[in-house]
Amino acid sequence: MTQLTPTLELALDLISRPSVTPEDAGCQDLMIARLEKLGFDIERMPFGDVKNFYAKRGNSGPNLCFAGHTDVVPTGPENEWTVPPFKPEIIDGVLYGRGAADMKGSLASMITAVEAFVTAHPNHNGQISFLITSDEEGPFVDGTTRVVDALMARNEQVDWCIVGEPSSTHTLGDIIKNGRRGSFSGDLTVYGKQGHVAYPHLAVNPIHLAAPVLDELASTEWDNGNDFFPPTSFQVSNIHSGTGATNVVPGTLSAQFNFRFSSELTFEDLKEKVVTILNKHQLDYDIEWTYNGLPFLTKPGNLVDAMIDAVERTVNVTPQLSTSGGTSDGRFIAKMGTQVVELGPINATIHQLNECVEAESLNQLSTIYQRILENLMAN
Amino acid sequence: MTQLTPTLELALDLISRPSVTPEDAGCQDLMIARLEKLGFDIERMPFGDVKNFYAKRGNSGPNLCFAGHTDVVPTGPENEWTVPPFKPEIIDGVLYGRGAADMKGSLASMITAVEAFVTAHPNHNGQISFLITSDEEGPFVDGTTRVVDALMARNEQVDWCIVGEPSSTHTLGDIIKNGRRGSFSGDLTVYGKQGHVAYPHLAVNPIHLAAPVLDELASTEWDNGNDFFPPTSFQVSNIHSGTGATNVVPGTLSAQFNFRFSSELTFEDLKEKVVTILNKHQLDYDIEWTYNGLPFLTKPGNLVDAMIDAVERTVNVTPQLSTSGGTSDGRFIAKMGTQVVELGPINATIHQLNECVEAESLNQLSTIYQRILENLMAN
Repeated sequence: MTQLTPTLELALDLISRPSVTPEDAGCQDLMIARLEKLGFDIERMPFGDVKNFYAKRGNSGPNLCFAGHTDVVPTGPENEWTVPPFKPEIIDGVLYGRGAADMKGSLASMITAVEAFVTAHPNHNGQISFLITSDEEGPFVDGTTRVVDALMARNEQVDWCIVGEPSSTHTLGDIIKNGRRGSFSGDLTVYGKQGHVAYPHLAVNPIHLAAPVLDELASTEWDNGNDFFPPTSFQVSNIHSGTGATNVVPGTLSAQFNFRFSSELTFEDLKEKVVTILNKHQLDYDIEWTYNGLPFLTKPGNLVDAMIDAVERTVNVTPQLSTSGGTSDGRFIAKMGTQVVELGPINATIHQLNECVEAESLNQLSTIYQRILENLMAN
Repeated sequence: MTQLTPTLELALDLISRPSVTPEDAGCQDLMIARLEKLGFDIERMPFGDVKNFYAKRGNSGPNLCFAGHTDVVPTGPENEWTVPPFKPEIIDGVLYGRGAADMKGSLASMITAVEAFVTAHPNHNGQISFLITSDEEGPFVDGTTRVVDALMARNEQVDWCIVGEPSSTHTLGDIIKNGRRGSFSGDLTVYGKQGHVAYPHLAVNPIHLAAPVLDELASTEWDNGNDFFPPTSFQVSNIHSGTGATNVVPGTLSAQFNFRFSSELTFEDLKEKVVTILNKHQLDYDIEWTYNGLPFLTKPGNLVDAMIDAVERTVNVTPQLSTSGGTSDGRFIAKMGTQVVELGPINATIHQLNECVEAESLNQLSTIYQRILENLMAN
């Protein structure tokens, strides 16, 4: 049986609280109690249904912030789980439960890392902070973005930020995310003219009009990426047209698409390229754009160096820097001019049934976080 | 006020019966009573919910059959009609009501034409028949096709058939339909692999796969038609793919398409061409075919000549022969080796609110039908 370290005990306690977005279910209280004992100043910052807090220890010097979320995605059918999703268990060294990897395990590792570091270095340099939300998996409206707005409004400086998102792929620490691509969506309506399939000359088929346009959009090479970003990608997520009848040419078609874009191009560049293609095909259309976030990038520097050293010494792995994958709250924090890097456990099971993580990897993650603190903040 | 001729009186009586498919609402009884008085042998041939009858006068010689349907399409919102759809009225010489043009007006004209002809020629040559159904606008399963099967099973000969479908476009008799294109549908499912838009290399987007295929299908020239048929046409009627979420690459796409095809190609030819295109693009797909009907063609001959002469003498218009437009029950009757031609009133308002027809055109149509009988059957 696995020995319950303080990190695993806290992870189990957090996971047993059913905090599906935007619920927090007492997780933040648990973290706050631990941080208060260490002398952190606590600022609860609820917005709407969403609980958030910002906590800080120290009054001046560089601010290293641990960021994360207490909310989790829904469980799916609970009876298909090996263990109940909110009754976590460690079986053969593997911790099962919703949030084990995304990201209550990381939160536990952050807390115990800071406890160990502050105990050893009560007069550490700079400032250590936490920025925690219960709305990262949801609409992300009343979560990190609003806390960041409040911090920026009072000129709070955050120099470095470690987001506990599960960045690892095959083994703990193999990937650290030093940026994320930008994201935006388009909602396209193509207008034709409804009619009977037997009289095609009286109808204009919007499916026929849209097919070559979607083909061109899907096969366009938008850029080649760069040293830090993979190439910009375009995906159509939804397409609908038709009355249901097989003998009617529909009058309109709707399609939604999403871009994940590198720092080689801006939102405006891509919008213009899309519109040029639509117009080249002489479509009659409407389009609505939804802008989800800028790309951000933390170039190698003192934070990244401190992290690579901590990972190498703890698990004997040299991390790769990557900007691939989905969005995270890092994009909001980066707006403050902060160096933002994501480092957390293996993401293979996140958002799935039987989400799990190797129990020992959370102990190792705590050590890694502690060593980053030592590299940057020890006096 | 328009004088009520026997044709208009019967048309009003038929239209006032709310015979939405598969209802007949007593229309066939009304026709049967009139035909019995003329000495027709009546055969009621109900199948399922559908009423049909076959009536015949005469025992040998060429059989000229009048074919049609007593059912009508739904009215749509009745309060948007100028007159209630089943309370027909003649206003300023125009007869309004559901079925006025499609095709209770034609049924009335057929009955009065036959009454006048039989009264003048009680010992006419050949045989005059009626084949009437209450399921032309519906699933056309238990209607004309089953009556035709029964007639073929007993080797009933039908040489000529006049279907009363509203063939005219601008003026009564300007178009007679001497055939119809074939029709079939395909129900295509394209398989991809579901995934997150942020990890496109782990997903296979079926919308992206389908776009160039649909573009190629939509822009293919299948044939150039021939002297009797317009070119074969292809239309996608429905397309659906997507989970609703904007960040998910869907796993499958479904699309339905329909061919209206000339006599230059067969159903098998077209199926093979479609499959060749699908395979060329290396799609992973399933497809289900629904076969609606063969093309049929009645080449100019004694029936068409008799009709052209009757139209020219009655309304001073020379009809054009055409095979364009939707399917009708003519395709089933053509299976008997019958020369099938469609001739009826102007179709501008069929299936619409305020369906209507010029009242006088039904009187003229009765005269045209009567003159066709005289041309072919007078002794």
